[in-house]
Amino acid sequence: MALTLHHEAPDFEARFAALLASKREVSEDVDQTVRAILARVRDEGDRALVEYTNRFDRNVFSAAELAISHEEIEVAVAGADPGIVEALTLARDRIASHHARQKPVDDRYSDAIGVELGSRWTAIESVGLYVPGGTASYPSSVLMNAVPAKVAGVERIVIVVPAPDGILNPLVLVAARLAGVSEIYRIGGAQAVAALAYGTQTIRPVAKIVGPGNAYVAAAKRQVFGTVGIDMIAGPSEVLVIADGDNDPDWIAADLLAQAEHDTAAQSILITNDAGFATAVEAAVGRQLKALPRAETASASWRDFGAMIVVPNLEAAIPLADRIAPEHLELAFDAAEDFAGRIRNAGAIFIGRHTPEVIGDYVGGSNHVLPTARSARFSSGLSVLDFVKRTSILKLGPDQLRMLAPAAVALAEAEGLAAHARSVSIRLNM
Amino acid sequence: MALTLHHEAPDFEARFAALLASKREVSEDVDQTVRAILARVRDEGDRALVEYTNRFDRNVFSAAELAISHEEIEVAVAGADPGIVEALTLARDRIASHHARQKPVDDRYSDAIGVELGSRWTAIESVGLYVPGGTASYPSSVLMNAVPAKVAGVERIVIVVPAPDGILNPLVLVAARLAGVSEIYRIGGAQAVAALAYGTQTIRPVAKIVGPGNAYVAAAKRQVFGTVGIDMIAGPSEVLVIADGDNDPDWIAADLLAQAEHDTAAQSILITNDAGFATAVEAAVGRQLKALPRAETASASWRDFGAMIVVPNLEAAIPLADRIAPEHLELAFDAAEDFAGRIRNAGAIFIGRHTPEVIGDYVGGSNHVLPTARSARFSSGLSVLDFVKRTSILKLGPDQLRMLAPAAVALAEAEGLAAHARSVSIRLNM
Repeated sequence: MALTLHHEAPDFEARFAALLASKREVSEDVDQTVRAILARVRDEGDRALVEYTNRFDRNVFSAAELAISHEEIEVAVAGADPGIVEALTLARDRIASHHARQKPVDDRYSDAIGVELGSRWTAIESVGLYVPGGTASYPSSVLMNAVPAKVAGVERIVIVVPAPDGILNPLVLVAARLAGVSEIYRIGGAQAVAALAYGTQTIRPVAKIVGPGNAYVAAAKRQVFGTVGIDMIAGPSEVLVIADGDNDPDWIAADLLAQAEHDTAAQSILITNDAGFATAVEAAVGRQLKALPRAETASASWRDFGAMIVVPNLEAAIPLADRIAPEHLELAFDAAEDFAGRIRNAGAIFIGRHTPEVIGDYVGGSNHVLPTARSARFSSGLSVLDFVKRTSILKLGPDQLRMLAPAAVALAEAEGLAAHARSVSIRLNM
Repeated sequence: MALTLHHEAPDFEARFAALLASKREVSEDVDQTVRAILARVRDEGDRALVEYTNRFDRNVFSAAELAISHEEIEVAVAGADPGIVEALTLARDRIASHHARQKPVDDRYSDAIGVELGSRWTAIESVGLYVPGGTASYPSSVLMNAVPAKVAGVERIVIVVPAPDGILNPLVLVAARLAGVSEIYRIGGAQAVAALAYGTQTIRPVAKIVGPGNAYVAAAKRQVFGTVGIDMIAGPSEVLVIADGDNDPDWIAADLLAQAEHDTAAQSILITNDAGFATAVEAAVGRQLKALPRAETASASWRDFGAMIVVPNLEAAIPLADRIAPEHLELAFDAAEDFAGRIRNAGAIFIGRHTPEVIGDYVGGSNHVLPTARSARFSSGLSVLDFVKRTSILKLGPDQLRMLAPAAVALAEAEGLAAHARSVSIRLNM
């Protein structure tokens, strides 16, 4: 049974604030362990990488066996269910065509006094993509990270994916192949992040590392940040569904459970203007849980972090949604389009009764890597912009320099930076 | 005397790689101290904030005195040199008009099968801007951070600036007023970052914190990241000047020293195709250092981190520049325009003999907050994009859902996520 809050209750604000403040993740303190792993791989290269890989993943690889060969990739493709390959291909194409619209455009212009200014975008040269092993080894995530990098023009994309006990999800290789990635290593954990950041004899370093991982991977990414770029640190997934009483409670229950089955720390919240509907959804959740393979995970998530909020009208949901700043926001009511335009903080919005969030996980075309834990207040989902960077351009002739010099010299002197002032004035014989 | 490298020397690659790898900053380990400060301000609010502020800045403020009043700001404006106010106003206007071109455009479209997709950009609601105290309390940096936030549409911009011994640079207040910022607190250090991230009785929390600071501020920003957004962690400044022998050695020496005077850890590098010119620049640096107020800082920077690289031709400088990935790249030769187009990694490029980098520090219009320490390989200078975030939009009708459902269900099942599959199939009576 999930927490139920009533907007009109006297203690609503306190209970809602407590819901917002609730920590869903206990972050393990693995910083020291990770620091040692990073240092050894940086100093010893392949030797340390192989040792850690064999120890943590229970393997017996040599350095030469870390790279996954083209033949292995082709075997994975040949052995895959054609229906799945087709579905991944559809997803790949839809992701590529949506993300192609995100490519930023260069700007170059002269202003009123003839100063030329510009912004020039270039792709990051090389990117490493971390793919988790085991049950969270999702081919869809490979596409969601690799395709935007490819669209951005990144020449070298390197995938690392651990193979605990030698086992690898072949669909990860299929997705990599569909995304056009052929440099793949069977390594994981902090040692894989170290190899990508510092390079080893076998693996050339990259300029940026993206992709989700466990506490060790997250800590390693934080620690190598600066040496390389990193993407956001993803927390457990979450959905906010806003629905009126005209929905089938079973549809909405299914959406809440789709989020809950990810992780015991996932969070599903329903806001509705119909208290009876909330009760019906709760009952439907209970029924559907019985038939769910991942019932244990989903019921723990729903019990510990699930919430239903009853509001007097949907209007009252807008400020609540902005404070929750959900990763996924599903709007299941007729006026959803207008409502969506008035929401400020959300990673992605799914409009209308026929847009379950799951479509966005796979084949909608938009990215499923989205800001979690209220970070939609200040950050965005993964996009082509994460794989490019901008260089500013400035160009003055003698006339423009003469016009801007007095202000530049005045400010440099006001800031006590005489050599700054001199670098301008010397060109004017001032 | 700076390091001199010759491209044709047999040990060039090793020495250039060593130059790239040289650490210019010893990062103090202040994590534990900062962690304690953050925890106390989070738990105790104003009481801890006031105590730390008075202790570290040697003040006797009450909580009510932390905010700088409108009257104080007006007094600062009235007392400022009109020439400086005019220069700051020119800078403000040029920054605003350049950054206005960076505002991203919303996208919304239907694809071939009628799925509606979109990207909607909104401003971050509130931003905190850290301004250092003491000698590095630069009004130009206030403009460079606050004006883009204003252009982005951020409604609430909060400046924190420490007043050690009660002393505050009045030009910081003038710049804040010109940028349209009126919420300013005389606090600094990790305690100011904590107040911005968690809020206190006096200071409401913000969603993102930007701006440079010392090791404590940098550590505090890293630690609150997640609770709020942060900008990049800036390292010491650097310039790469590529110049041929047709330049006045004094001009180029002035540019190298403008960077060196910032900080003993700043770095100025010259690449030239004329060994005699390098010698002449070195001599000019020596001469100019004698007349420089900040000679001690600049000569330490030039001696410890300065470098001159002699190449057989300017073409050979392109791969070197991309490996250095300089914060500032100055191109002082006739073919600079074409050359600039072939550079991949640079925070900002200053084209031609009449575009000293200093113009970009103040009045060029582009931003002077740029990626340092080779991070131009994967990141960009500050822009309007740092103050907005993007929400993805997805909207399907029943027909579109029917078309995409089989692939979504297939992928959900392949990933072992039955509730995901159900959330789609239940809408189809599949």
